Amino acid sequence: MNIILASTSTLFGGDYLEYLREEITNLFQGIDEIIFIPFARPGGISHEDYTQKARSFFEKINIKVKGLHEFDDKIAAVNNAKGFFTGGGNTFLLVKTLHEENLMSILKNNVENGKPYLGCSAGSNIGGQNMKTTNDMPIVYPSGFDCMGLVPFNINPHYLDPNPELKHNGETRETRIKEFLTQNDLKVVGLREGNWIRGKNNKITVEGTELTRIFEKDKEPYEIKPGTEL
Amino acid sequence: MNIILASTSTLFGGDYLEYLREEITNLFQGIDEIIFIPFARPGGISHEDYTQKARSFFEKINIKVKGLHEFDDKIAAVNNAKGFFTGGGNTFLLVKTLHEENLMSILKNNVENGKPYLGCSAGSNIGGQNMKTTNDMPIVYPSGFDCMGLVPFNINPHYLDPNPELKHNGETRETRIKEFLTQNDLKVVGLREGNWIRGKNNKITVEGTELTRIFEKDKEPYEIKPGTEL
Repeated sequence: MNIILASTSTLFGGDYLEYLREEITNLFQGIDEIIFIPFARPGGISHEDYTQKARSFFEKINIKVKGLHEFDDKIAAVNNAKGFFTGGGNTFLLVKTLHEENLMSILKNNVENGKPYLGCSAGSNIGGQNMKTTNDMPIVYPSGFDCMGLVPFNINPHYLDPNPELKHNGETRETRIKEFLTQNDLKVVGLREGNWIRGKNNKITVEGTELTRIFEKDKEPYEIKPGTEL
Repeated sequence: MNIILASTSTLFGGDYLEYLREEITNLFQGIDEIIFIPFARPGGISHEDYTQKARSFFEKINIKVKGLHEFDDKIAAVNNAKGFFTGGGNTFLLVKTLHEENLMSILKNNVENGKPYLGCSAGSNIGGQNMKTTNDMPIVYPSGFDCMGLVPFNINPHYLDPNPELKHNGETRETRIKEFLTQNDLKVVGLREGNWIRGKNNKITVEGTELTRIFEKDKEPYEIKPGTEL
């Protein structure tokens, strides 16, 4: 396996994917074309415009990008691809589309057989066991919440620490994940911005600049350092 | 119809339901017992403990509270009830439970026939057309997202304005609701904390201390004042 599941595509004040440039170059070494999966459509952007955004980054590292929406036979396109990048946006929309097009298991098989995969945010959520720890709004109803399960846990991208100054009674991210654990027995990786999960061969580590917060059933949450194996 | 759909149960620094005491007294006038629906289980609290929390407030205004989980025949309990209060928590868990127990349409019929209904947060979401504008984490998979539709729009409780100082790339609430509108043509009422929707007879107004932000397809979001009819 050869994957990166990143918390975010863009650091505050930075350019799209720029903080991951070296990692991405390394991930896709020897590959000159990838398929971009634009279905999460952040802010409702069109598939075309979103693919163009990905293309603008990847042309800087000499990798061509085709949008999966461009293909009539998307299953064949995934099977024939050399690598994949799934962009962020709305996880419900992404998962609904992948299930409707019967692409979730096809993509999983291709990645598990060694094709490099980059996910950001929603694109990282689908690398987990299921999408039950997404932060996104359920704007559409998917036929199921199951995802690729490339890693044996769930991811919470854009993990945000409670802000003690906020005079607001919406639940904190930690409260939400603890609610998840009352209904599910599955590890959750709270991935702060600036961090990513790296899977290579059989080793899965957390990388980046920040500590990572881990949630497990009936345990106090705890922090792990970059480089720690998951 | 005689309903209150509130953004939150508790204002910052205040006690549970206290800011709504006068409104709640008015809503349940002439009624000495209500059924509390505890299924949203905030933070994973038990049905019993959550019902006790509601009971502690309602005994101050001389209204008895029974938890819906106490009844073997929950449909009969709803049909025999004099009024209802659904507490906040996780909307996915609440909606899943109501659908599993075939209670969503029973509750709707009872409220539409005039029994008073109070909802807070998740309990307000289920008064809308569907739960596609909840802020909650999808910790369980409900058999559908449809709700009671007591009002001809959707609600976004705990509506939060974008914070320009936040160095974080998670979507703002406004971005999320705009994503909803790319997939759905339905008005969304962004209900800030301190505000509630009041439905009495055929009139629906927004009440409270704050402006309310309204989102509609292909329109710029706009603000309405307390007292405005919806």
